[in-house]
Amino acid sequence: MDFPSFLTSLATSFIIFVVLMLLFTWLSRKPGNAEVYYPNRILKGMNPVEGGYMARNPFAWIREAMSSSETDIINMSGVDTAVYFVFLGTALGIFAFSALVLLPVLLPVASTDHSIRAVNTTSNGTFTQLDRLSMGHVGKSGPRLWAFIVATYWVSIVAYFFLWRAYKHVTELRAKALMSPEVRADQFAILVRDIPAVSDGQSKKEQIDSFFRQIYPETFYRSMVVTDNKKVNKIYEELEGYKKKLERAEAIYAESKKTNPDAIRPSHKTGLFGMIGEKVDSIEFYNDKIKELIQLLEAEQKATLKEKQQSSALVFFNSRLAAASASQNLHAPIVDTWTVMDAPEPRQLIWTNLSKKFYERMIRQYVVYTVVFLTIFFYLIPIGFVSALTTLDNLMKILPFLKPVVKQKAIKTVLEAFLPQLALILFLALLPKFLLFLSRAEGIPSESHVTRAASGKYFYFSVLNVFIGVTLGGTLFTNFKNVENNPNSIFLVLAESLPKNATFFLTFVALRFFVGYGLELSRIVPLIIFHLKKKYMCKTEAEIKEAWAPGDLSYATRFPGDMLIMTIVLCYSVIAPIIIPFGVVYFGLGWLLLRNQALKVYVPSFESYGRMWPHIHTRMLAALILYQVTMCGYFGVKMFKPTPVLFPLPIFSLIFALICQKRFRRFFISPALEVVSHELKEVPNLEIAFRSFIPPCLSAGKSDEHQFEDALSHVSKTGSSSV
Amino acid sequence: MDFPSFLTSLATSFIIFVVLMLLFTWLSRKPGNAEVYYPNRILKGMNPVEGGYMARNPFAWIREAMSSSETDIINMSGVDTAVYFVFLGTALGIFAFSALVLLPVLLPVASTDHSIRAVNTTSNGTFTQLDRLSMGHVGKSGPRLWAFIVATYWVSIVAYFFLWRAYKHVTELRAKALMSPEVRADQFAILVRDIPAVSDGQSKKEQIDSFFRQIYPETFYRSMVVTDNKKVNKIYEELEGYKKKLERAEAIYAESKKTNPDAIRPSHKTGLFGMIGEKVDSIEFYNDKIKELIQLLEAEQKATLKEKQQSSALVFFNSRLAAASASQNLHAPIVDTWTVMDAPEPRQLIWTNLSKKFYERMIRQYVVYTVVFLTIFFYLIPIGFVSALTTLDNLMKILPFLKPVVKQKAIKTVLEAFLPQLALILFLALLPKFLLFLSRAEGIPSESHVTRAASGKYFYFSVLNVFIGVTLGGTLFTNFKNVENNPNSIFLVLAESLPKNATFFLTFVALRFFVGYGLELSRIVPLIIFHLKKKYMCKTEAEIKEAWAPGDLSYATRFPGDMLIMTIVLCYSVIAPIIIPFGVVYFGLGWLLLRNQALKVYVPSFESYGRMWPHIHTRMLAALILYQVTMCGYFGVKMFKPTPVLFPLPIFSLIFALICQKRFRRFFISPALEVVSHELKEVPNLEIAFRSFIPPCLSAGKSDEHQFEDALSHVSKTGSSSV
Repeated sequence: MDFPSFLTSLATSFIIFVVLMLLFTWLSRKPGNAEVYYPNRILKGMNPVEGGYMARNPFAWIREAMSSSETDIINMSGVDTAVYFVFLGTALGIFAFSALVLLPVLLPVASTDHSIRAVNTTSNGTFTQLDRLSMGHVGKSGPRLWAFIVATYWVSIVAYFFLWRAYKHVTELRAKALMSPEVRADQFAILVRDIPAVSDGQSKKEQIDSFFRQIYPETFYRSMVVTDNKKVNKIYEELEGYKKKLERAEAIYAESKKTNPDAIRPSHKTGLFGMIGEKVDSIEFYNDKIKELIQLLEAEQKATLKEKQQSSALVFFNSRLAAASASQNLHAPIVDTWTVMDAPEPRQLIWTNLSKKFYERMIRQYVVYTVVFLTIFFYLIPIGFVSALTTLDNLMKILPFLKPVVKQKAIKTVLEAFLPQLALILFLALLPKFLLFLSRAEGIPSESHVTRAASGKYFYFSVLNVFIGVTLGGTLFTNFKNVENNPNSIFLVLAESLPKNATFFLTFVALRFFVGYGLELSRIVPLIIFHLKKKYMCKTEAEIKEAWAPGDLSYATRFPGDMLIMTIVLCYSVIAPIIIPFGVVYFGLGWLLLRNQALKVYVPSFESYGRMWPHIHTRMLAALILYQVTMCGYFGVKMFKPTPVLFPLPIFSLIFALICQKRFRRFFISPALEVVSHELKEVPNLEIAFRSFIPPCLSAGKSDEHQFEDALSHVSKTGSSSV
Repeated sequence: MDFPSFLTSLATSFIIFVVLMLLFTWLSRKPGNAEVYYPNRILKGMNPVEGGYMARNPFAWIREAMSSSETDIINMSGVDTAVYFVFLGTALGIFAFSALVLLPVLLPVASTDHSIRAVNTTSNGTFTQLDRLSMGHVGKSGPRLWAFIVATYWVSIVAYFFLWRAYKHVTELRAKALMSPEVRADQFAILVRDIPAVSDGQSKKEQIDSFFRQIYPETFYRSMVVTDNKKVNKIYEELEGYKKKLERAEAIYAESKKTNPDAIRPSHKTGLFGMIGEKVDSIEFYNDKIKELIQLLEAEQKATLKEKQQSSALVFFNSRLAAASASQNLHAPIVDTWTVMDAPEPRQLIWTNLSKKFYERMIRQYVVYTVVFLTIFFYLIPIGFVSALTTLDNLMKILPFLKPVVKQKAIKTVLEAFLPQLALILFLALLPKFLLFLSRAEGIPSESHVTRAASGKYFYFSVLNVFIGVTLGGTLFTNFKNVENNPNSIFLVLAESLPKNATFFLTFVALRFFVGYGLELSRIVPLIIFHLKKKYMCKTEAEIKEAWAPGDLSYATRFPGDMLIMTIVLCYSVIAPIIIPFGVVYFGLGWLLLRNQALKVYVPSFESYGRMWPHIHTRMLAALILYQVTMCGYFGVKMFKPTPVLFPLPIFSLIFALICQKRFRRFFISPALEVVSHELKEVPNLEIAFRSFIPPCLSAGKSDEHQFEDALSHVSKTGSSSV
């Protein structure tokens, strides 16, 4: 890539960004789009925009984002989001402080070095403008390299400082959230798994109750045995489906009545896709189905509660101190029985994973790790295979009716260009879902943990495949034999290839922030989908609400994306310091835009009180170590004799990691008792806390409150069954 | 070593053993030796021998040892000793069951192989009798090697079985001990370290009390702040020294008065070693000193309690359930503050280590590990250096007055043979003490933990230096370059050298059990020392008691010694199955003899409720893996094609280790709540539990009970100080 084309690509990205910003300013002022641009405020029952749409300054959102405090973020979007901003702020801080020293020092040092100009003049005109500003322009083993050594240390020290500050700050955030006087159901419960087989004549529930009552005679409140809800859940979902269909049919009928009082009642066929079979009156049919299913559901609920008890349970305590303490204690001398952990929020419990056994979880974990490892390293093999199969010729053989279409020249050209990539594009689009699926298959009991696990896997995938993959390109495989014999040489190879790809990654980062953040803020895609759905598909209020449901920040892909940028910028920070401003803009702009999105758009789907942080911290440190090791290699390539002064850096990072782990980590696994011993603002209603954990498929369908009450007391008092 | 000399060495060892056994039978029947042969029974207030010395069957001790149950051992010597017998039993079981299959199968298979007889006949007469019974006698890549492959698997499977059973059994032992209805002071206390600095105007004691009272409002009893007792302890020890001297002087005076009523009162000089200085009346002098020191001690006690408080404390709870739970909980969000662990017994607390800070402990640990690593690998260097310095010529230069003595030919010969080894002998004799010192320097708070740590270090030292060192001999260093380039080749080198040393280790094991156990049982050395001391040095009852104090089983050296034998026998089990009977005899004889010693001789100096087990288990598994890897190498040397069928074995061992760790380990760190929730047989007297933790230097010297009470209430109530 030469300089003009680099500038062109930068300019194009910038223009797209400006256009998207203008679009946002225009679209967000239309009241009809409020559900797309302010869903979080609407769901919280707030006025979407204070002071009317048109009267607003078009850049008011910037002021609002800038002036919002951390407390605002926690109130609007929870601790996890606040932690995400700590992450953005940390990355921004690291790069800003690095830039403060690196730009004014390294750029002049590099550009005024004339030692290798003789070599450079031969390649004159290609890309000297940027090359001159990078470490590649400094002569081999020249004394000017000392400046770059110092710079490498400076970036590391700045990183340690900000990482330490951030960990401390997140610890405080988490402590504050856990000690909050609000009553939160999950703080009163623990999750108990691997309960051993019941002995003679005892029911599961009796076993659990007597076990915990003996140990916690005063603080034990009640237990809820986990049941196998597969069947009851299926019935429940079917029932909910029919309810929606009924609502929809009624809405259609009411609408058509408005224009034509004699409108016929909606009807449909009962067979496949409503295309064949008997024709029935929809409203009547759905009503009948619902009645039938409610009876089925109630029968199945009873059967589930009585007969499908699993070997795990949620145990409730009458104080959060007792629950926090219980969640950390060893209960039985055989350690793999009666394992406990603090209960996640009811909404993020993965009910089907709760009853997975200890060793099953272990085996599943290792199997998943193996699959992920294979995916990361060998995903190109099946994709290449699929690509080879889906050539045009093959396609025409399988689907002969396509022949006349494909024969057209224009279409053929497009298809031929597009088909080979198809498998890869599909794979990359589906990868996050696949990783989430894999993480769920590990047997993890909470959604937030699944998100963390998937995010970690995605991070390793993107760093290895995008960053290292692009950098090394073909060289890795040609050098494979070499690397196998001497694993350390991978860093030498990496160090040699890095500088060549500096401009590629410069444009990559710029594209990510201009186009990526432009799309993020303007929400063009959700906007179009919402309006299409609203116009053509949605008939009921519930359906419309579903159409504009904003979703959460989806950390599973967002973090790894940001971390990839961070890794790239870190690794290039000293080699080509010109990349640092791009990093600053990426994280600065990200902070600003996502502040707006967190305050107004996204609705978090869970709250883990900042448990994401240790994972982010570890990955940032991994990126830092990758950077340090690469620099060692690069200075080696530069034949710089004092290179060994860099060798302590990765060791410092490991020591730093160890100290952080010792000092902070455990609080992110177990709640500290000091924190939860703070008083609550009201006496907790334990009955409500208990009920909030009952899954909808078990609590729904009861027509009157009395029956519901009855079922619950059955659950808790007869002893032979539970939810 | 040829066959006759092997038999001679075996016979010599056996004769020594028989002589020592006869000595034991004779000596142990003399009532005057009861303190040497039955000290544990005497200290427990029991009759040394039921039914008089001479009336006893000389082999009664064998019957008594055989018929003693595990409960007897626990009652007489504690859970730790019972766990030691589980270890001996496990090793015995592994070898006995291995022998059952290996001896009848492998010996015929090996001795009837004629494929390499042609080679062997050339070396006829040297040692074919034993060689014929070993794997070396089987032809390279012959089908008979399959029997050895099966044998390798059989030994591993037997080991897994016995290790699993043992871990389960030890878990039960520990659970039973922890749930015992006896009141044990240490079960009501936790050790809190890394208490942060006191905030405004609060005393340390107030800070600790208010912290724990907030979290455990109902179960917190009282706290004891750890103080810096260095100075007060010094005064206390001086005081105790004078008390002993006074007692001795009085005893001497009383004795001499018996024979001569006008005996002069004992006197001594106050200067160096009582040789120079003013002559004083001893009894008066000591009485004055004691009075003086008591006053000093009391003043220093007050000062210590008030001013020398450290940042750690013992915290007492009013139920053992509460203490067990508190010892496992995270208390503060900053994890490296308020760290807790369950309190060790008062007698094994290492008071000076209690106040070591978190990171200080960490650093100390790593420094110690480095020192141990260097010691294990490079201990020969300083020893060689010292040996070179202490040649006769050098000695004569430094100490010229030795010249006439050294010039004598006989003395010179002895010295020349002995001097070079001197440094090595001294080093090996002092090594356990050195390792104990190092382990203590890590900042470990309890003696039992120090013992475990030292035992682990000694294990690695002995396996690496005795077993691998002897086996490889010179070859390791000549092959060093080779090994460095390909670390796996160490196992090939080991595999090649192993068979050559089989007879060396056969005699080594035999020596250990015949001579080692003979000395152990007959207690010749302690007997002689006791009688010498009693006759010439001891004047008072206390001094005599000190002279026969039996000590404990000193696990720090005993376990590594046994583990070395176990490693040797395991590694040779398939290569030269004839070693297995030696292993069986070692552990069988050991079990029997130490049963006697545990019941009658040794007095345990601490009780850790079997915490030693996970360490033993890990080391046995390490030995097993060493055996498996060596076998892989040896089959490789034998050019046996199906060798890879052995490769899964080390992996199985690692999986086995992982499962054992997950299933059993944590219970050996934290007490399980189910276990300690069992009821006590009486309401615990917390005041006594509390007082039992006060170190003698702080509680002693109070002349009347009232004052003592007063000091204690001062400690606990004024808030500004504590013990």
